[in-house]
Amino acid sequence: MYQCSEARMADKIQTFSAFGDAGHGGITRYSLSPEALMARKEFQRRMEAIGAVIEVDDVGDMYATLPGSDPEAKRIVMASHVDSVKNGGNYDGILGVMSAMEVLESVHEQNIPHKHPLTAIIWTNEEGSLYPPAMMCSGIVCYDYLPEDIRCKFRYEDMMASQSILNPGQTFGQALAASGYQGDRACRLSPEKYLYMFETHIEQGPILEDAGNDIGVVDCVLGMFNYRLKFYGQTVHAGTFPMPKRRDAFLAAAEALCYLHREIDALNIPELVYTTGEVVCHPCVHTCVPDFFDFSFDARHEDPAQLNRVLEVVKSCGEKTWGNGCTCTVEKAWNRDTVYWDKKLVGYVKQAAEELGVSHQYIHSGAGHDAQFCSYVIPTTMIFVQSKDGLSHCEPEFSSVKHCTEGASVMLNAVLKADED
Amino acid sequence: MYQCSEARMADKIQTFSAFGDAGHGGITRYSLSPEALMARKEFQRRMEAIGAVIEVDDVGDMYATLPGSDPEAKRIVMASHVDSVKNGGNYDGILGVMSAMEVLESVHEQNIPHKHPLTAIIWTNEEGSLYPPAMMCSGIVCYDYLPEDIRCKFRYEDMMASQSILNPGQTFGQALAASGYQGDRACRLSPEKYLYMFETHIEQGPILEDAGNDIGVVDCVLGMFNYRLKFYGQTVHAGTFPMPKRRDAFLAAAEALCYLHREIDALNIPELVYTTGEVVCHPCVHTCVPDFFDFSFDARHEDPAQLNRVLEVVKSCGEKTWGNGCTCTVEKAWNRDTVYWDKKLVGYVKQAAEELGVSHQYIHSGAGHDAQFCSYVIPTTMIFVQSKDGLSHCEPEFSSVKHCTEGASVMLNAVLKADED
Repeated sequence: MYQCSEARMADKIQTFSAFGDAGHGGITRYSLSPEALMARKEFQRRMEAIGAVIEVDDVGDMYATLPGSDPEAKRIVMASHVDSVKNGGNYDGILGVMSAMEVLESVHEQNIPHKHPLTAIIWTNEEGSLYPPAMMCSGIVCYDYLPEDIRCKFRYEDMMASQSILNPGQTFGQALAASGYQGDRACRLSPEKYLYMFETHIEQGPILEDAGNDIGVVDCVLGMFNYRLKFYGQTVHAGTFPMPKRRDAFLAAAEALCYLHREIDALNIPELVYTTGEVVCHPCVHTCVPDFFDFSFDARHEDPAQLNRVLEVVKSCGEKTWGNGCTCTVEKAWNRDTVYWDKKLVGYVKQAAEELGVSHQYIHSGAGHDAQFCSYVIPTTMIFVQSKDGLSHCEPEFSSVKHCTEGASVMLNAVLKADED
Repeated sequence: MYQCSEARMADKIQTFSAFGDAGHGGITRYSLSPEALMARKEFQRRMEAIGAVIEVDDVGDMYATLPGSDPEAKRIVMASHVDSVKNGGNYDGILGVMSAMEVLESVHEQNIPHKHPLTAIIWTNEEGSLYPPAMMCSGIVCYDYLPEDIRCKFRYEDMMASQSILNPGQTFGQALAASGYQGDRACRLSPEKYLYMFETHIEQGPILEDAGNDIGVVDCVLGMFNYRLKFYGQTVHAGTFPMPKRRDAFLAAAEALCYLHREIDALNIPELVYTTGEVVCHPCVHTCVPDFFDFSFDARHEDPAQLNRVLEVVKSCGEKTWGNGCTCTVEKAWNRDTVYWDKKLVGYVKQAAEELGVSHQYIHSGAGHDAQFCSYVIPTTMIFVQSKDGLSHCEPEFSSVKHCTEGASVMLNAVLKADED
């Protein structure tokens, strides 16, 4: 078994944490921002130092490739992203890139024989923080292979026209052209040139930590649905309108939210997660009763039958009135089926963890990742690294150097097993 | 008894409704906007046509005065505002100005004898829609007479520096200077020059309509308190964090809102109103559990003892945890005691309504008005006109020409009674 270097991993974590340092232990590093370009330059510098060849495709995805012994063999790829959410942490995304670099550096330094070329990829704009949607550039690159209902959201022209949420009028296409990272379409990941894809990522949940396991052998990305629940009342003046005649859309939404938790929790569905994270209130003035309140409802589970039981409860909100006579509509935003990772690659990851003596377990991914789009193109899998307190997309996000290096070592050995195919 | 003119009132309603017409039956007419300046010019044109003298004070308040028979007598004033909220209606504020104009026009046309000069006032920036706070310029003018806890919010320098909510960097002071309506401080309303103040306003509630009464004889502005309830949880990823460990600040707020309605309604306090109209959710992203949720709580009642019972319930929220372990803080924003109108003037309004044969009743004002600041300077009262369906601060706001004219006739005759003092 081969081992990656804790010292080299620690150096990378420290180095990349400076690019976009937001002053409280985390980073803000929007895709194509000056901070993200610093991270790309560091990636290129380190990869060229070990003899890897850099390519860039037409949407800015960067590929660093170490040649293998067989000039005819397809590439095995390890990929993630260097962009973050606003006030994100030092591990989400960038750990997958650092792990891919670490695998290539270990192969180079230890002179590990391998047949296939090994490629580390930076996907452009995974978070979609500045230019929505998330997973934009893996969506574009995998476009031809995606199911129609996903594909329709990633049309090249639409993506190029995506407007900055901070600077309306500035498009993703303009930012890409200005970045100097608009390369050659022929460099895109494709099944003709690529064999397998691995992605290492932080867990973003507390399951591994609670179980005392360092590494997660990911078997799938959970199916999910996303709805909006909209409540309609009447705006009246706070000081002058009698309580019995009010129709308060915020109260309506609050009643419905309590109802949803009561009814869904009573279904007793193990491992179900559901979230109501985004709200809109109108007119949102302290002297007016709200006439409109809207919240998102996101539910995730491996089993579509269980998701359907939840959806029945959600839809039942639309058949009732809330908050003394407010109506409710329940509108579908999108859904996706569970995406299972390639069984053979999942097996390689599990074997590698076992042989390395790293504590591990099977785990589902609740979050979406670029890997799920790649899985429509080539066999794909993921490796999770323990997250302290399960926190992610926030500045306290943390994984230890030991765990990060273990994740890279598991990926290295799984890749070497795949290299024998 | 003297009567105002329905035809002239209808013409004014139609004319002023064009200044800021937002295309759906209502208006957006921010203070000092081009639309508001059109309304000021129309006011000036109509008032000068009947021989009234126009003055403007240093914060843009406009005064149109018809001289009385006694050159030594103080002025009796009728005042309201021409600015609106976004997508407001054709009656809130402007009806008080149109009624004041109608009284002066009736006095002129019918050659009604009066001892005191009669003045119609436009207060600048009552709504505070673009430049907070509300009631800004009556606050500045009445500053020296206000209780300290109110006064501290209306310092002249702070008001001049109030920034536009649509165009940060643009201050109220700059807009005032650019408007051409920055006049002479000596023109401000003062107890040396003014005797009484009347304000006619739409009810903004359904009490008169439900009771079948056209006119409200207002006896007070209700006491109120305004608090913020803030809930603190933990942001985690929607897809990856198990339900039992989540602390969801939105769920916490929803539970607390249902609790508040349950507990406060159980107090059975007649005529109490309370409103939770403004919310803040963080990070407000559909893939994140909210770690912060904040809502406003506004309660109004004549009796401070009843308000205290409500406040006890509100404060009890801070002693509990909500949404599986979120904490709650309860923070006072402001409060005010009930402001009673001058009993003699209230009596004049009631007598005038009785003698005119207009159906009427006593009523409280739940909303705040410029009149409440004036009441600290000179004896003051208000007259309410029936509002269709109780709606206000919205485009469907409506009061009939008959009711508007009745309101003006009641004010005319009440002013003439006051003129005899």
